[in-house]
Amino acid sequence: MDEKSFQDHYDEAVSYCYGCGRLNEAGLHFKSYWDGEEAICSYEPRLYHTAIPGFVYGGLIASIIDCHSTGTASAAAYRIAGRKMGTKPYFRYVTASLQVDYLQPTPIGETLVVRATVSSFKGRKAVVNSILYVRDVACARGEVIVVEMPQRWLSDLD
Amino acid sequence: MDEKSFQDHYDEAVSYCYGCGRLNEAGLHFKSYWDGEEAICSYEPRLYHTAIPGFVYGGLIASIIDCHSTGTASAAAYRIAGRKMGTKPYFRYVTASLQVDYLQPTPIGETLVVRATVSSFKGRKAVVNSILYVRDVACARGEVIVVEMPQRWLSDLD
Repeated sequence: MDEKSFQDHYDEAVSYCYGCGRLNEAGLHFKSYWDGEEAICSYEPRLYHTAIPGFVYGGLIASIIDCHSTGTASAAAYRIAGRKMGTKPYFRYVTASLQVDYLQPTPIGETLVVRATVSSFKGRKAVVNSILYVRDVACARGEVIVVEMPQRWLSDLD
Repeated sequence: MDEKSFQDHYDEAVSYCYGCGRLNEAGLHFKSYWDGEEAICSYEPRLYHTAIPGFVYGGLIASIIDCHSTGTASAAAYRIAGRKMGTKPYFRYVTASLQVDYLQPTPIGETLVVRATVSSFKGRKAVVNSILYVRDVACARGEVIVVEMPQRWLSDLD
């Protein structure tokens, strides 16, 4: 089993993302992993990530869904190609559109768990669907359309 | 002209939002104002709010669109009622769904300007449409469905 997160395999040039880049010192460092057919990302919000006191800020929820979705598309593309993640040429995705439905207020002080799957790949585009849970209660739902990143944005190419 | 932002009129109980709460010391302090029929929110991202180096993190873009949209709905509800913002009973909104289309990469190191209008009010629900600009170039488009906040979430009620 791969102990490294999807994001730990990213090329250095794309590892400065505020949400999930391992090299962004001020960032949130979201980490995504396979859990069977789903990709999972867990995160414990800081207390200041508040919306209404007691509940998690919606922008943080959008952020974790966003980063986890691009990461999931990348990992799924490698899986489908039968290649080890991080090998070249890189599969990396950017967000074209982000849809988040807030199903109910998300309590703060608990771990957020986002479970995502890629529902379709079509050319350079993929659709990633996800649910954000707190203690197995679905609090938000995401649908993210991602597009394969231009190779010129990636460093260290062959 | 009202020199205070929409958020400066919020009841204390709902002023701890990480995005726009004036009382959240670690927060981003987004501020919204009327500019004719549109509501405007300007923000200069920190350098660490990076996606790919040189471009703004999509989660930050989602965050500013989210907070600006709930604020715009609140201010518009007061306007329609012919009441001064911040008077009781409070009009405050929460996000039911957030849709962001990323039209092109948003350059960092510039001021983001989001312009929003309420396209519909229906019962307790409103739809807020917005465009995020950098130097007059549209970089992202938002559509946010907001719902009037339960009055029990607001303190200091009559």
